[in-house]
Amino acid sequence: MPQTQDRNRQILLASRPVGAPVPENFRLVESAVPSPGPGQMLLRHIWMSLDPYMRGRMSDAKSYAEPVAINDVMPCGAVAWVVESNLEGYQPGDLVMSYTAGWQDYSLSDGSMVFRLDPNMPHPSQALGVLGMPGFTGYMGLLDIGQPKPGETVVVAAATGPVGSVVGQVAKLKGCRVVGIAGGPDKCAYAVDELGFDACLDHRLDSLPEDLANACPDGIDVYFENAGGKVFDAVMPLLNPHSRVPVCGLIAQYNATELPPGPDRLPQLMRLLLSQRIRMQAFIIFDNYGPHYPEFLAEMTPWVAEGKVKVREHRIEGLENAPQGLIGLLEGQNFGKVVVKIAD
Amino acid sequence: MPQTQDRNRQILLASRPVGAPVPENFRLVESAVPSPGPGQMLLRHIWMSLDPYMRGRMSDAKSYAEPVAINDVMPCGAVAWVVESNLEGYQPGDLVMSYTAGWQDYSLSDGSMVFRLDPNMPHPSQALGVLGMPGFTGYMGLLDIGQPKPGETVVVAAATGPVGSVVGQVAKLKGCRVVGIAGGPDKCAYAVDELGFDACLDHRLDSLPEDLANACPDGIDVYFENAGGKVFDAVMPLLNPHSRVPVCGLIAQYNATELPPGPDRLPQLMRLLLSQRIRMQAFIIFDNYGPHYPEFLAEMTPWVAEGKVKVREHRIEGLENAPQGLIGLLEGQNFGKVVVKIAD
Repeated sequence: MPQTQDRNRQILLASRPVGAPVPENFRLVESAVPSPGPGQMLLRHIWMSLDPYMRGRMSDAKSYAEPVAINDVMPCGAVAWVVESNLEGYQPGDLVMSYTAGWQDYSLSDGSMVFRLDPNMPHPSQALGVLGMPGFTGYMGLLDIGQPKPGETVVVAAATGPVGSVVGQVAKLKGCRVVGIAGGPDKCAYAVDELGFDACLDHRLDSLPEDLANACPDGIDVYFENAGGKVFDAVMPLLNPHSRVPVCGLIAQYNATELPPGPDRLPQLMRLLLSQRIRMQAFIIFDNYGPHYPEFLAEMTPWVAEGKVKVREHRIEGLENAPQGLIGLLEGQNFGKVVVKIAD
Repeated sequence: MPQTQDRNRQILLASRPVGAPVPENFRLVESAVPSPGPGQMLLRHIWMSLDPYMRGRMSDAKSYAEPVAINDVMPCGAVAWVVESNLEGYQPGDLVMSYTAGWQDYSLSDGSMVFRLDPNMPHPSQALGVLGMPGFTGYMGLLDIGQPKPGETVVVAAATGPVGSVVGQVAKLKGCRVVGIAGGPDKCAYAVDELGFDACLDHRLDSLPEDLANACPDGIDVYFENAGGKVFDAVMPLLNPHSRVPVCGLIAQYNATELPPGPDRLPQLMRLLLSQRIRMQAFIIFDNYGPHYPEFLAEMTPWVAEGKVKVREHRIEGLENAPQGLIGLLEGQNFGKVVVKIAD
């Protein structure tokens, strides 16, 4: 069931997951392609993005964004062609990145959260990763909150993912020692051999706390938190005085249905922050740093073009395979930025 | 046993407390008054300071400062006269604030962590409080990390203490709504009637969570954390998006001997930080902000002189009563900045 010109396939949230999402939480429906009203344009999606934050939107727990309503289209960003436009400044044939596209073939847009792309860019799907929200997240969180100095030790989890790989590679460009954490020996080898990390540790091994201590003989100055769970547990005892902890995600916790058993370590964390004078700051990239997007692109685009920042994508074919793609992403089955090709 | 000219009374750490300190953890000894060597001066202490951080120094747990060794003099800052000086720039009769004085009548100093005071200043003991480390802590933590904006809601515990009273009064001067938390109705009335807080809540009441929610109808934008424990528990659900949490102390936790029972709320706190994009940053005032001390004094000194920032001291007479003073401070028995008068 490929993309057509007259039907709009959509994947809806059918029910809220308890723990890890399952295929039954999603439903594929079809409807007519919508028509743009005044001030709107119609977008045809080519590449859609899958990202960990989507798990949060499937729940109705309080979070930074409203939950997706049951029977609403699942949210995502997409690279898209403009098909019709009643919106000044956009014409059919324009290539754009829309952050409000959704898991579907077509969407209407009023131009908000839409960025124009060069229609000749060699790899448009990079607008979903290294040059889009995940790359921007890694770049700004590292540089603005992390404030890495040459010679400092930076630790990042999900090291081969689109955020972690940018954090680590930018930290290397800034002269830091970089220790990654990833799931399995292949990802760890890639982080060291291809991305240039100084070390990368397998979080599946029980020896992670000792391995991390050995890999960070001078402690940790910046821990870029995109994991949570046992990775953070291993990091805590190694945090140096005046260390910085940008927090952009907690993928290891997203499927949890209850808090872990005691003791309650909340007071312990507060005491650690105080004793080490730690700055811990969470951020949502466009919410905190939206106006910095052009400067990010100005620095990152040449780095990618020159191979100073390397990119790996995990490509999935077909909109109908997006649910399984997200389920796998939350289990760490992907190797690189997950993108779904839904049309040519 | 008052101060004399030839004997130096000292209070030593006799043993490490388990839980709350007891009198047996301290020992009073006497020795000869020391003589200053080259580059040193002899200080005679007039007012000494008691502060919550001292509890931490009595333990050998990892913290931002080295623990006091058994049989070492307990640490404190003091207002002192220079008695003898082999140190350029200081002469007998100079009045100084020394942050390395210790619980004793006399100390030697090489001038480090010593600040000159105006010998005619009306209330020299204020150099231990509103114009010293606690006031500086409240001022910088609120303004630099808290970044309060007019109309925002600022919450601070230990509201009548030397840090909390400065946080609240400076926040009022900056146009914020200020809600204090203190122990008992007298302190709460003082915070509202004298210090000008918009509200002050009694943390001894079981209704604290509801009381705080009612007092903060627009949520909390800045929570100045100097308490920990159940105050922080009540604050967490009210923290607004982009709120800031400067962390300077955790007095409610200092006497704890073990972690509370579960569940483990550490992942919950991380999730809260992320969902509300909170900045939480701990600091130790001279460690983080030492060079800003003159600008702090330049702004705070006239505020105090003009009565825009009001000051309350809890005065104890006699060095020998310092141990009980610290024990009481950790139980919240003081009402205002605790200072010990040890000589005229």
